[in-house]
Amino acid sequence: MVNTLFLPELREMLAERNAHDLQEFVTALNPARLAEYMEGLDASEAWEVLQHAELKLREDIFLYFTHERQIEIIETQDRAGVAELLADLPADDRVDLLHDVQEEVVEELLPLLPADERRELLRLRAYAPDSAGAMMTTEMAMIEEDLSVRDALVALSREAEHVETIYYIYVVDHDLHLRGVVSARQLVSSLGKPDLKVGDLMETDLILVNATDNSDEVTRLVERYDLQAIPVVDNQRRLVGIITHDDVLDAVRQEATDDAQQMAGIAPLEDDYLKTGLVTLAWKRGIWLTILFVAASVTATTLDNYESKLQKWAWLMMFVPMIMSSGGNSGNQSATLIITAMTAGGLSVKDWRKVVVRELCVGLMLGTILATFGGILSTVLTISDPGAREQFYWPFVIPVTLVLVVTSGAVAGSLLPLMFKRLGLDPALMSNPFVAGISDILGIVIYMTVSMLLLR
Amino acid sequence: MVNTLFLPELREMLAERNAHDLQEFVTALNPARLAEYMEGLDASEAWEVLQHAELKLREDIFLYFTHERQIEIIETQDRAGVAELLADLPADDRVDLLHDVQEEVVEELLPLLPADERRELLRLRAYAPDSAGAMMTTEMAMIEEDLSVRDALVALSREAEHVETIYYIYVVDHDLHLRGVVSARQLVSSLGKPDLKVGDLMETDLILVNATDNSDEVTRLVERYDLQAIPVVDNQRRLVGIITHDDVLDAVRQEATDDAQQMAGIAPLEDDYLKTGLVTLAWKRGIWLTILFVAASVTATTLDNYESKLQKWAWLMMFVPMIMSSGGNSGNQSATLIITAMTAGGLSVKDWRKVVVRELCVGLMLGTILATFGGILSTVLTISDPGAREQFYWPFVIPVTLVLVVTSGAVAGSLLPLMFKRLGLDPALMSNPFVAGISDILGIVIYMTVSMLLLR
Repeated sequence: MVNTLFLPELREMLAERNAHDLQEFVTALNPARLAEYMEGLDASEAWEVLQHAELKLREDIFLYFTHERQIEIIETQDRAGVAELLADLPADDRVDLLHDVQEEVVEELLPLLPADERRELLRLRAYAPDSAGAMMTTEMAMIEEDLSVRDALVALSREAEHVETIYYIYVVDHDLHLRGVVSARQLVSSLGKPDLKVGDLMETDLILVNATDNSDEVTRLVERYDLQAIPVVDNQRRLVGIITHDDVLDAVRQEATDDAQQMAGIAPLEDDYLKTGLVTLAWKRGIWLTILFVAASVTATTLDNYESKLQKWAWLMMFVPMIMSSGGNSGNQSATLIITAMTAGGLSVKDWRKVVVRELCVGLMLGTILATFGGILSTVLTISDPGAREQFYWPFVIPVTLVLVVTSGAVAGSLLPLMFKRLGLDPALMSNPFVAGISDILGIVIYMTVSMLLLR
Repeated sequence: MVNTLFLPELREMLAERNAHDLQEFVTALNPARLAEYMEGLDASEAWEVLQHAELKLREDIFLYFTHERQIEIIETQDRAGVAELLADLPADDRVDLLHDVQEEVVEELLPLLPADERRELLRLRAYAPDSAGAMMTTEMAMIEEDLSVRDALVALSREAEHVETIYYIYVVDHDLHLRGVVSARQLVSSLGKPDLKVGDLMETDLILVNATDNSDEVTRLVERYDLQAIPVVDNQRRLVGIITHDDVLDAVRQEATDDAQQMAGIAPLEDDYLKTGLVTLAWKRGIWLTILFVAASVTATTLDNYESKLQKWAWLMMFVPMIMSSGGNSGNQSATLIITAMTAGGLSVKDWRKVVVRELCVGLMLGTILATFGGILSTVLTISDPGAREQFYWPFVIPVTLVLVVTSGAVAGSLLPLMFKRLGLDPALMSNPFVAGISDILGIVIYMTVSMLLLR
C-alpha cells in the first residue's frame, strides 16, 4: 500500500518549484516517515524533492526508500548528484546498492567518487557475497590504546558523525591490529577518572570474525553473545570492518525465508515474491517439482509391480493415498523439527543416536493413534466387500501398515537432514523433498508387504 | 557438546576450596567463555564457582548459562544468594526467568527482593506473554529536556552502569511523558557546544510501541527502521520501558522457528527439540497428524465413490499417488511463498488479485512441464494394457489431469493463507496442512472427472 497522504501537496510544490515549502517538508518529519510519504512519487520526482534536503538528511531519507527505488534513482538520475550521495553513504550500503546497479552505470559512477571511497568500494566488492567481508561496513570507531579516557572522548567526538556506531570503540595498535574493545558506556561512566588509559579499561578477550567467514557464523556469534556489533579482521588480525546488529537482523530474516522456501522445494528467490518475474518463479519451482515428480513416478512403477496383487484385492487401492500422506506428513514433521533445531543451534549431527531413539518412540505413539482411526475406517468402508471379508486378518492390514509407515517416516525424516548436514550439504535444501519422495515409496512397499503377509 | 577443557582443574579447585585460584579463573576470561567452560559442572558446583566473582561479574556469567541451568540454580541454590543476584539482573531477564521457575520458589524469593524490584516484577508479570510489555526492560537512560549537553553527559555517566543501553537516551518531562530521543553519538559529538540544551538537539518524531502491542509489531518496526532499541509507552504516552535489539533478534528467530514448525503441521514447541518430552512431542504432532489423517481419509471415501470406474479402467489407479503428490507439492510451494512474503512484509491481503493471476500463470507453466513427463511415462507404462490402448484419448488423461491439478494446487495454495490472514488467523498455522488436505481431494476429483470425460 502506498501512502498518499501528502502526495497532492508534494506534486503541487514540485510543479510550482516551491523551494521554501519543499525545504520545510523535508526537515519537518522523521526521514523514515518522509520516505513513506514519497512512495507515490516517481523516481525523478523523489530525487527532485531530495535536492531540497542537505546532504546528510538526503542520505537518511534515501536509505529508507525501497531497494528497487534506490536502484532506479541511481541508474536514472544525474550522475554527479548520485555520486555525491553515494560517496557519503555507509560503505556496506554502497556496496550492496552498486551490486544491483547495471554495470555500465557503475563504470560511469566510479570515476566520480573520491579516490578513497573508490578504492574501498573495489576492495569490498572483492569479498564473496555470503562472507562477513561483504556484510561489513568500514566506518567504525577506532582509537589507540595509550589514549586517556578524556582524549579518547575528544577523539571520538570528532569521529562520531562519520562512523556507523559508537556503541563499541575498537582499540588498535599502530598497524591496525585489533587489541581490544571499550564500550561508549564504559568511557562515559569513567568520565570521573579522565586520566585512566583506554588500554587499562578495554576488554581483550574478543569475539570476532574473519572477513572470509560465512554469514551464518556471523549471525551465530551475534545471537549467542548478544552483541551490538562484531569486529571483522583479516588474516593478520588487522581490523578491517564491523558488522552491526541491523545487518545481522536482515541476515537472520533472510536465512529463515530461504530455509522455509527450500523446505517447500523452491530454490530461494532473490527478490520479493511480487517482484519476481513469472518465468523465474516457474523455473525456481519447476526444478524441484520435476525432481519430486520423478520420485513420485517411481510410485507408479512400484504400484505397477504389485498389479496382480492389487487386482486380487481391489479394495486395497482405496487406502493408498491415505497411507502415503500419513507417512509423508510424519516424515515432514520430523525433518522440519530437525532442521529448525539445527538452525537454532540446539542440535548437532553427533546427537543422531538420541534422535533415532526419540523418533522411533514418537513414531510408534503417533502410528498407534492413526492405526486406531485407520482400523475403524477401513473396517467400515470394506465390510460390505466380500473379497475383503473372507480374509481372516483383513481388519489388521491398514492399522499394521499405518504403525510401520508413520514410524519409518519419522525415522527417515529425521535422519535425512542429519545425513545431508554430515555430507556438508544444506539440510534445508535437500531434505523435505527427499523425505517426501522416499516416504512415498517406503509407504507403498510396506503396504504391499503387509498385505501379502496378512492376506492369502 | 560440553566444553571440558578446564573441567578437571575447576573440580580440583572446588575440592580444595582454593579461593585464590577460583577468583583468578573467573576474572581472567570473557564471561561468555567462562559460562561455556562451566557447562560440565552441576548446578551447585557452578553456583559455588560464581561466588568467587563480584556481583556484577557473577551476573554477567550467569546470563550466559543456558536457560535450563539458570532455572535449576534459581530453584535449588540458597535463596538469599539467588535473590541478591536476581535483584541485580536486567528487569526483562528477571521476568523471563521467574516465568519458568516453580511458583513456590517464586513465592519464597519475592519477599527477599528489594521493594522496588518486587513491585516492578509484579507489574511486568502482568503483561501478556506476547506483548511488548513482556519483552521490555525498564532500565533505560532517561534525561529531562532542559538539561544542557554537559549536564546530560554527567547525569548519564552516573546512570550508565545501571541501564541496558545508552545508545539512545530518552528525553522525558516531569511526568515521564516521552518527548524525544537523543543518541549517545549526538551528545558526544556536541561536546564542543556544552551549553546546547538537550531539548534543542532531540528528535521528536519518534517510532514507538504501546506496552500492549504484539511482539510482531515490535519486530516489524525495529526491522523496518533499523533501530537499536524501541521505546515502550503506556496509554498516556509515559515511557515505561525499552526493547533492545538482542531481544528483537531472539523474537525474530523464535517467529521463524514457530512458522516453520506450524507450516509442517506441528504445534510450536516451547523448548529445544532435544529437551521436549516424548509425550509432549507426540501430542504436538499428533493433533495435526490426526486432522491431516481425517482429510486424507476423505480421499479413501472419494476413491470408494469412483470404484466402478476404477474397476473398469484399473490402470488409472497406478497414477493416483503421482497426481496427488504433484498437486500437493505445487500447493505447498505456493503456500510457503505467500506465507514467507507476508511475514517479511512484502505482501498483504489486498494483493490477492495479483496473486491469483500470478499463480494461474506459473501453475500453467509448471503443469505443462509435468504434463510432458507424465504423458510420456503414462504411455510407456500402459501401452501393453489392452484396456487402456483401446481408448482413443487414453494418452491424454494423465497430461490433462496434471495441468489442471498443478494449476489448481498453486491457486488454492496461495489463496488459503491469504484467506486465513483475512479471517485474523495465523496463516502459518493453518494453511499448509489445509492445502495438503484440499489439494489431495481436489486431485482425485479432477483426475476422475477428466477420466470420465476422455474415456468411455
